[in-house]
Amino acid sequence: MPAGERWHHTPSSPVQPSEKETDDEAFVWSQIKAEARREAELEPALASYLYSTILAHSSLPRSLSFHLGNKLCSSTLLSTLLYDLFLSAFSTEHGLRAATVADLRAVRVRDPACVSFSHCLLNYKGFLACQAQRVAHKLWNQSRRPLALALQSRISDVFAVDIHPAAKIGKGVLFDHATGVVVGETAVIGNNVSILHHVTLGGTGKVGGDRHPKIGDGVLIGAGATILGNVRIGEGAKIGAGSMVLIDVPPRTTAVGNPAKLVGGKDKPKQHKECPGETMDHTFEWSDYII
Amino acid sequence: MPAGERWHHTPSSPVQPSEKETDDEAFVWSQIKAEARREAELEPALASYLYSTILAHSSLPRSLSFHLGNKLCSSTLLSTLLYDLFLSAFSTEHGLRAATVADLRAVRVRDPACVSFSHCLLNYKGFLACQAQRVAHKLWNQSRRPLALALQSRISDVFAVDIHPAAKIGKGVLFDHATGVVVGETAVIGNNVSILHHVTLGGTGKVGGDRHPKIGDGVLIGAGATILGNVRIGEGAKIGAGSMVLIDVPPRTTAVGNPAKLVGGKDKPKQHKECPGETMDHTFEWSDYII
Amino acid sequence: MPAGERWHHTPSSPVQPSEKETDDEAFVWSQIKAEARREAELEPALASYLYSTILAHSSLPRSLSFHLGNKLCSSTLLSTLLYDLFLSAFSTEHGLRAATVADLRAVRVRDPACVSFSHCLLNYKGFLACQAQRVAHKLWNQSRRPLALALQSRISDVFAVDIHPAAKIGKGVLFDHATGVVVGETAVIGNNVSILHHVTLGGTGKVGGDRHPKIGDGVLIGAGATILGNVRIGEGAKIGAGSMVLIDVPPRTTAVGNPAKLVGGKDKPKQHKECPGETMDHTFEWSDYII
Amino acid sequence: MPAGERWHHTPSSPVQPSEKETDDEAFVWSQIKAEARREAELEPALASYLYSTILAHSSLPRSLSFHLGNKLCSSTLLSTLLYDLFLSAFSTEHGLRAATVADLRAVRVRDPACVSFSHCLLNYKGFLACQAQRVAHKLWNQSRRPLALALQSRISDVFAVDIHPAAKIGKGVLFDHATGVVVGETAVIGNNVSILHHVTLGGTGKVGGDRHPKIGDGVLIGAGATILGNVRIGEGAKIGAGSMVLIDVPPRTTAVGNPAKLVGGKDKPKQHKECPGETMDHTFEWSDYII
Amino acid sequence: MPAGERWHHTPSSPVQPSEKETDDEAFVWSQIKAEARREAELEPALASYLYSTILAHSSLPRSLSFHLGNKLCSSTLLSTLLYDLFLSAFSTEHGLRAATVADLRAVRVRDPACVSFSHCLLNYKGFLACQAQRVAHKLWNQSRRPLALALQSRISDVFAVDIHPAAKIGKGVLFDHATGVVVGETAVIGNNVSILHHVTLGGTGKVGGDRHPKIGDGVLIGAGATILGNVRIGEGAKIGAGSMVLIDVPPRTTAVGNPAKLVGGKDKPKQHKECPGETMDHTFEWSDYII
Amino acid sequence: MPAGERWHHTPSSPVQPSEKETDDEAFVWSQIKAEARREAELEPALASYLYSTILAHSSLPRSLSFHLGNKLCSSTLLSTLLYDLFLSAFSTEHGLRAATVADLRAVRVRDPACVSFSHCLLNYKGFLACQAQRVAHKLWNQSRRPLALALQSRISDVFAVDIHPAAKIGKGVLFDHATGVVVGETAVIGNNVSILHHVTLGGTGKVGGDRHPKIGDGVLIGAGATILGNVRIGEGAKIGAGSMVLIDVPPRTTAVGNPAKLVGGKDKPKQHKECPGETMDHTFEWSDYII
Repeated sequence: MPAGERWHHTPSSPVQPSEKETDDEAFVWSQIKAEARREAELEPALASYLYSTILAHSSLPRSLSFHLGNKLCSSTLLSTLLYDLFLSAFSTEHGLRAATVADLRAVRVRDPACVSFSHCLLNYKGFLACQAQRVAHKLWNQSRRPLALALQSRISDVFAVDIHPAAKIGKGVLFDHATGVVVGETAVIGNNVSILHHVTLGGTGKVGGDRHPKIGDGVLIGAGATILGNVRIGEGAKIGAGSMVLIDVPPRTTAVGNPAKLVGGKDKPKQHKECPGETMDHTFEWSDYII
Repeated sequence: MPAGERWHHTPSSPVQPSEKETDDEAFVWSQIKAEARREAELEPALASYLYSTILAHSSLPRSLSFHLGNKLCSSTLLSTLLYDLFLSAFSTEHGLRAATVADLRAVRVRDPACVSFSHCLLNYKGFLACQAQRVAHKLWNQSRRPLALALQSRISDVFAVDIHPAAKIGKGVLFDHATGVVVGETAVIGNNVSILHHVTLGGTGKVGGDRHPKIGDGVLIGAGATILGNVRIGEGAKIGAGSMVLIDVPPRTTAVGNPAKLVGGKDKPKQHKECPGETMDHTFEWSDYII
Repeated sequence: MPAGERWHHTPSSPVQPSEKETDDEAFVWSQIKAEARREAELEPALASYLYSTILAHSSLPRSLSFHLGNKLCSSTLLSTLLYDLFLSAFSTEHGLRAATVADLRAVRVRDPACVSFSHCLLNYKGFLACQAQRVAHKLWNQSRRPLALALQSRISDVFAVDIHPAAKIGKGVLFDHATGVVVGETAVIGNNVSILHHVTLGGTGKVGGDRHPKIGDGVLIGAGATILGNVRIGEGAKIGAGSMVLIDVPPRTTAVGNPAKLVGGKDKPKQHKECPGETMDHTFEWSDYII
Repeated sequence: MPAGERWHHTPSSPVQPSEKETDDEAFVWSQIKAEARREAELEPALASYLYSTILAHSSLPRSLSFHLGNKLCSSTLLSTLLYDLFLSAFSTEHGLRAATVADLRAVRVRDPACVSFSHCLLNYKGFLACQAQRVAHKLWNQSRRPLALALQSRISDVFAVDIHPAAKIGKGVLFDHATGVVVGETAVIGNNVSILHHVTLGGTGKVGGDRHPKIGDGVLIGAGATILGNVRIGEGAKIGAGSMVLIDVPPRTTAVGNPAKLVGGKDKPKQHKECPGETMDHTFEWSDYII
Repeated sequence: MPAGERWHHTPSSPVQPSEKETDDEAFVWSQIKAEARREAELEPALASYLYSTILAHSSLPRSLSFHLGNKLCSSTLLSTLLYDLFLSAFSTEHGLRAATVADLRAVRVRDPACVSFSHCLLNYKGFLACQAQRVAHKLWNQSRRPLALALQSRISDVFAVDIHPAAKIGKGVLFDHATGVVVGETAVIGNNVSILHHVTLGGTGKVGGDRHPKIGDGVLIGAGATILGNVRIGEGAKIGAGSMVLIDVPPRTTAVGNPAKLVGGKDKPKQHKECPGETMDHTFEWSDYII
Repeated sequence: MPAGERWHHTPSSPVQPSEKETDDEAFVWSQIKAEARREAELEPALASYLYSTILAHSSLPRSLSFHLGNKLCSSTLLSTLLYDLFLSAFSTEHGLRAATVADLRAVRVRDPACVSFSHCLLNYKGFLACQAQRVAHKLWNQSRRPLALALQSRISDVFAVDIHPAAKIGKGVLFDHATGVVVGETAVIGNNVSILHHVTLGGTGKVGGDRHPKIGDGVLIGAGATILGNVRIGEGAKIGAGSMVLIDVPPRTTAVGNPAKLVGGKDKPKQHKECPGETMDHTFEWSDYII
């Protein structure tokens, strides 16, 4: 696929889920139930929590909708209403479910601190914020914008993750730790991207229009990195922690520093082969950078 | 007004609201009600929320007090108590109400992602945190400090915005996204300032006294900027995202980088004409900076 | 003690509390009660809060367990369950209580904005997050990992402080403001350390094993600093706000910048005498750094 | 139908709802929505309540399930769980829905204090307790007895109405005021029955088996009446308020007093023509009784 | 005043509160505060409750509104909304406040189990239900009927006291224990009446119109008594516990039994001198009755 | 023991629990856990409830305290506070625990509708109200009267059971259905008593002092019976449902009617041999009574 196409986010819901998708969801859900059952037996103090959030439910969408409804509700936005909203979205749109499954796998594989699928489902606020945002995104596209914005606000209050409902997010995305992540209205995040906490994909002014970063597939963005403006971070690129990025970053190159420069130099940036969004390799050749 | 005066925050509540202030509040409130009514009609799932937070109330102070009371309450600080506290403050001090109205206008005008006044009132945690802080500030000045500090704590828990109740904040201030904002005890923020998320206006040690930044009118502070110590950021100045500022920044100049330097050089910094706090123009001449 | 030993976190609970520890706890608790009583008399609007959180309780562990249980509970993790869990931990392990007392003293002494012990106990989310993490750490070591991870998740949701339960934290630690702090699984934090908000002690990849920073006693880490990898920050060292640290920092030296360099140069870094974790002196010789 | 058949409660759910049932439900639901909309417009203070309980929902079963879930939930039985349970029952069993509609009509027609269908749906605890009991009854018959008994307990706590889940209740039943109603395990209540508050349909001992009253169609039972044992209250009979009934009561006769006797005498009891369960005529010929 | 006038409930709110009314309220409120302060000192476990419900408030209407708001709220009728509603009613209508004060005195004087004014204010559900009903009655008269009926429903759920908002209730009324009390739409209760639990003032059929009992001043109605129809219970009359009353009862006479007869006989009923509603003397000459 | 002694309620807590008491509690608790475990496996929708209320706890007192704390809490009386209060009472006073166990056995044996010990523990509001009253009684005797009265009020609100904390209640007591039970301050209830719903043990006036009924061991009181004044209901007596009792009832006799008379006549009342409080035999020879 030509790089230029990357930014045209592919629609997430074809007419029918593929067999593989269905199998995938079933597999992950069976794992989650098995994990929860084991933990409930070993830890009675947690059993009530595990039963109400996981084991009482007949499917992953129900469990997730219940959990999100209870996490995001407030005295003026009741849990039953949110539960209904989430369940309706996840039930009717298998693309949302496929993305959820891909995200669960991404967290499980990439984060050494993640001990199980259920650990991610229950405890990763980046994961939960992302699932809720996907539902908000769907509402946004259905022109139910006030509701989408109310969801954004609850996600920001509860998880300290502020992603505009219009932002497009691919599958297999890991928001690690997630506190303080801000993603603007016209941002696009590709598939298999890993984003650490305090990362900003922001605009540069009060002008409307297409004004936020486009993040290619397989990109890794380190903690505290700030990427501003309608710049393109190429597929498989790596953004160093704490970097301030105002420029395009070519595919499979690394940008670091404040302001960020390409490792190896602007003209002949060093290229890596692996996909850092998946390997989570934050390192780079220090010597290349220092100079 | 001489620059030196800037930092002496003018008292916000003259004896009577001016006619313009009263009209302004009435206009904004009528807009908010109209917006909410329209949205309630189009989106039944949100109608209950819109009625309880906006449409059931006879005035902006009541709506805001209700919303803040419900957002900031906890099992040990009841919503009714907080509602009473906020309502009493907003009712007796029209300066607070005028600041609220100015903030609503600021968000509406400056943030392209803000679609309506009610969007701001309901969903902007920076806006809500700021209104609650103003009430805490009033309590602080009335020597009701434990209560002011309890409010600060709730605001920090709920919104992840930590502004000391003694800090002085002007009118027409926009805290965009707001997560992670920290403002210290002796900080002063002027009018028409725009501050992005993760911004710190901090001290530099354990010494008490006047130890935090003074931010002039119309300043723009980019995401993740850290300004430490009793430094002065001159009127209309611009602080680049991710900057670490330990120096005074003259009016209408730009400071960027870690550590931050003035664009154009220390001796002859480049000056801009517009007021970045209002234009929200985060950009600067990259070339000037790189050098 | 040789520096290398520093990282072997000393066990926090000898068989019996020393007399000094018992006296210390009694003194601090009596101060807290006296403060709360005074404030309850002066501020009826806060009295209910002060009675329920402090004055109704017969001991510091009970008060703290109640407060944490109410702060961290959710609709699926009830306050009574958490209260029980915390109370059982604090009651049986005096080392936890001694650490709590040391932390209360640290905040009181080091933070000029802290007006009383009760102010810290009630309102400092860094303090509360740290006490809850210590209990999670104990559960982790008892192989009650799912419960420990559920606590971590609640702490991250409620306080926006994300500390892995396996991380080891010494006594007398101040997390100031605390929003956005992230501390990884194999990180170690010594005694008398002060850490500002938005600080990350992170890993550099998806490899498991010992991969997070080791922070020596008396270290000061400024706001927004990011320290990545299994590096050692020597005893009494100072890390400038906003720094990105990927290298070992020798004892009593200062590292600043992105990427961070030692003040005075790599080969002959400048050394300070005082212990910045306790003095909270964030300053350094600007001139040394600029060069 | 022979009287003996009365007590064999007919199964409530044939394979498909009849067209009339579907129309009936649609009509009543449209009335409820119209009433709620009118009231929401006239009374902003109630609008949030009306939207969340009625106007946000797409069907009567959803509205009722939401309302019951929120009324009957507790800190250990979450509203989302109950909502799911009720919605699943009402969705899959049209007989339950038909009974709900018949009850709504019964209340509306028979109680002069009932001003609208929505008044009944929202505010009549007898109506709500009865709908919840029907779901408990269904669970009981599916051998989900612990769940059925937990529901009974919540209904008794919340509404002070204690109906055993095994009890069989017909359609078009009015429980007026309802406080203190107790109905035992083997009781049967026919169609179009009206039962006032404090009515007991109880057993007479600790022996198990069929031991509670059987109430025929169209019976009216006055406030505070106590009917004990496996007695039969014939179709269209009337039980005076405060009566203590230990005997069979023939169809269309009246029993009053403590102990209750038949009006007109045991041998030739006076018969009425109308159906008191529907006319709600509590009166009787005083002179007949006094003698 | 002629007996016939009794039933014309006098309007409760003349233009201005008399000085005596104001003094009375001030006296009772000062007593309540003194009691609560004493108890808070002696019982730390209750202090939080006493502060939040009484000591944090500046007036009896505020305390009562807070308490009612918190008691009667639900997940769909928020405490802040109810607090507002109650406070607005009690603030603008001094007749409501005067009735509250008279009720507090009535309970304190007549019930030997009542140990203090605050005991009544906090714990007597009959008292609380009555105050809330008076507000519902006011709403009813303002044609805010759906709101009045919603209040009635909440009062019936929470207190098991079901009084129609249209019912007129005098001052100085004691509802002792109160569980199960039912009072119909057109019932009138005079001043200084005492009504025990399980008492019904009901109608006799489904006909609308004036159909409920009229209870004169100073009447005492024993536990479980049922009075049905538009009958008149004369001033100072006494109704025996468990009685079923379908007849007028002349002033200062006693009716007992099921069905109730006048003590001393229909033609020459025995008359008493004292006012049983105030003396709470439930006794009567057994011998008179037995015959 | 002479009959006269009956009314001197024996102190419930000797110095140490007997071995039998300890064994009894252990047996019943093991049954409860086994039942709950079985039900949790069969009914996932209830598992969370069963784990949080029973299976997460290490002892019956903890489970009961948790359940009562969650049932009786309100927004101003927090669950953690009540949990603490109950747990402290049940832990220090084994007599309370022995009474709890005896009550559980009584319900299990006497009520054919009771399917298991856990059914009673979780769902019987009469059982729960009684356990909470026993704790209130203990507080009353410790002169913590305001707290005892606050508990009484919560029990009355939540369970519609109003028992004065000063009332003395024996062991092995069954309150069946329980709604509307009222027991006055100086009432005494012996061991192995069974009391149905709507039963009043009331006073007859506003005079203080010893003014309520004394109920002997093994008495059965039918639904809706009202017993007024300082009368004695002898050991093993039976009170018919709906009776109004104003006289002493000799041991092992039956009183029925309004007003109640002794079956068999005042002078030579019929005596039964069994203990109706245990057999729950509500029947009596109708013919004896009719005459």
